Amino acid sequence: DQKPVDLNDPFANEPSRLPVFKINSKKPFNAEPPLEVLTDSYITPNELFYVRNHLPVPKIDLKSYRLEVKVGKRTVKLSLDDLKKRHKPVTITTTIQCAGNRRAEMSEYKTVKGLSWGPCAIGTARWTGVRLRDILLDAGIDAKDPNIKHIQFNGKDDDITKACYGGSIPISKAMAPDGDVILAYKMNGVDIPRDHGYPLRAIVPGYVGARNVKWVHQVTASHEESHSHWQRNDYKAFSPSTTFETADYKTAPSIQEMPVISAISSPAVNATVYEEQGHIEVKGYAWSGGGRDILRVDVSSDGGKTWQAANLTKDEPNADDSAHCWAWTLWNVDVPVKPGQKVELVCKAVDSAFNCQPEGMGAIWNLRGFLSNAWHRIPVTVAQDD
Amino acid sequence: DQKPVDLNDPFANEPSRLPVFKINSKKPFNAEPPLEVLTDSYITPNELFYVRNHLPVPKIDLKSYRLEVKVGKRTVKLSLDDLKKRHKPVTITTTIQCAGNRRAEMSEYKTVKGLSWGPCAIGTARWTGVRLRDILLDAGIDAKDPNIKHIQFNGKDDDITKACYGGSIPISKAMAPDGDVILAYKMNGVDIPRDHGYPLRAIVPGYVGARNVKWVHQVTASHEESHSHWQRNDYKAFSPSTTFETADYKTAPSIQEMPVISAISSPAVNATVYEEQGHIEVKGYAWSGGGRDILRVDVSSDGGKTWQAANLTKDEPNADDSAHCWAWTLWNVDVPVKPGQKVELVCKAVDSAFNCQPEGMGAIWNLRGFLSNAWHRIPVTVAQDD
Ligand SMILES: [Mo]
Ligand SMILES: [Mo]
Repeated sequence: DQKPVDLNDPFANEPSRLPVFKINSKKPFNAEPPLEVLTDSYITPNELFYVRNHLPVPKIDLKSYRLEVKVGKRTVKLSLDDLKKRHKPVTITTTIQCAGNRRAEMSEYKTVKGLSWGPCAIGTARWTGVRLRDILLDAGIDAKDPNIKHIQFNGKDDDITKACYGGSIPISKAMAPDGDVILAYKMNGVDIPRDHGYPLRAIVPGYVGARNVKWVHQVTASHEESHSHWQRNDYKAFSPSTTFETADYKTAPSIQEMPVISAISSPAVNATVYEEQGHIEVKGYAWSGGGRDILRVDVSSDGGKTWQAANLTKDEPNADDSAHCWAWTLWNVDVPVKPGQKVELVCKAVDSAFNCQPEGMGAIWNLRGFLSNAWHRIPVTVAQDD
Repeated sequence: DQKPVDLNDPFANEPSRLPVFKINSKKPFNAEPPLEVLTDSYITPNELFYVRNHLPVPKIDLKSYRLEVKVGKRTVKLSLDDLKKRHKPVTITTTIQCAGNRRAEMSEYKTVKGLSWGPCAIGTARWTGVRLRDILLDAGIDAKDPNIKHIQFNGKDDDITKACYGGSIPISKAMAPDGDVILAYKMNGVDIPRDHGYPLRAIVPGYVGARNVKWVHQVTASHEESHSHWQRNDYKAFSPSTTFETADYKTAPSIQEMPVISAISSPAVNATVYEEQGHIEVKGYAWSGGGRDILRVDVSSDGGKTWQAANLTKDEPNADDSAHCWAWTLWNVDVPVKPGQKVELVCKAVDSAFNCQPEGMGAIWNLRGFLSNAWHRIPVTVAQDD
């Protein structure tokens, strides 16, 4: 019953995936786990972690794999074993989120261009690897060189023209001792799965998923951002009044650090719920970029007129303690409802800089549907008493 | 015509102030400059910088003044000259904002408790001093000591019971090489004026004004936050549903890093404005805490239905270059209007983590009226054509 492999199909070598994924695009593969399992565990299981691929998954042989680190005129080539021998392993627990998470809701307000992600293009894992800072210092970087402003990453995934996926981050983030940027070879204790970047992935805590470049094989210190399509002509932020006619990718800022967001993972949209003693339980996640913690999640069962503060579940401390809070907060709360009611459940989070989520999509709408962090609203029906 | 000095009045020794201030409280003195001058210059002149005093202004004699730095069992006492001799001077340009800035607008939504600040409890200055990090290292701090979690500041201002003003910041902020926390002795090139902390003030860029302790004379490394009233029972954040009956200051988070905010400085509320070629100019400020830059300010002349991006004016680079953006962005934009219209001007800013301001006060309302950063709305009337 196996299909024959089409050798001309660049997607002939994709890894196998669980059938439970909600698939937004098959080639390249883009899929998110079902909402009802997303917050079942603090750490997202590897096989349920959302997959956001821009190109076919490359097949990489460790024997020939080398990481090239380019600093000035010098290029250092390192096998994965070299990397592990030269630098101490660190484990960072971080949430990674796609810039397009919750895009479908923004598109409901007014159509945007991009894959139709629900609220599950986000996940949390423990990543083990070596500090990018150490690798760059080892390669001879002068952190005070004013000509070095960005660290560029290239992935091994490429298209027919051999243009590969790439992205870059500011030098200040790459070199900050507490920035916790690593090149990771393990995801939750095992070799990183092919879909998530085997054998090496850039992990940039608190930044958009797109800069957490998978299958990374080139790291370049540069005076400018990556020239890749995805750095220059994608993953940029526009105002609500920008149209496809007026959009200027040259001057628009690249998405890097992410804003505060939250979502309800249970109950589901339009579910019929059963109250107990006048209450139902609501659960979900909250996260903010830049290492900011979540201080509070407010939940409403009357469309946002009154609020209750949720119980918060945080990360276990990292093995390597960090002052910065890179991973999400799970939350739950019992809210009051009456049998037979149709209610709108709403959640909104507050981060440790007291930033909050916008009420609606109108003021943050942008033609690409990025950064869709308005209050999450879930209509449900409370079942009648028997 | 001079009034006799009442020697029993703890406020008998206040400095003189300009009569243009809008005074919110005389004793202690709390006042903000007029909105029409706030954004006339990028650097706020010392004599127009908002004054937020909690107690009488102390009279400090440099001859007897000593800074006490307490680390563990050791106390170091330093004259201002000692400080200047031991450490290199640095100049940091930073915006300082009161936690209660724009409180009056929140109180219009629903009454809150606190001084009725307009949108001018904010200002920007160049502060010159020495790095707190260097002072603490010099006093023998072990930055990795897990028992040191906060740096406490005490001011020389006190009340009849000798309880002084105080506040504290997390050790991670105090010790971060790029956190830029300094003890400043100059404000815009001159000795700090008495109202702003002569002879020494803690400058904590990106944090709430309240932790920028004036007249600082004690710095203590501690396992806990300052015990001062203003750290423990004031300057804390509550949810919209918290009442004076349910407010628990023990568990509420202290306000430290601040969220994104913006305000219109011209035209004024209810002004009659004169259009030119169908447009009026709107001006204002925008700022975010934590060193986050302002990426965009959207301005509307139809109450928030459509938006235009404003022109942004940024800081000159600091003498000591910092990766972090501590100072405000001034902005201006021409927006379309029609003669005879009554319009609502609105502004909202986006910071470099793509955080945005909430649409209204309802969702961020809190009983103390802190962190009042909703969209700023200014009704104006456009004059009829002749
Ligand atoms: Mo993404
Ligand atoms: Mo304040």
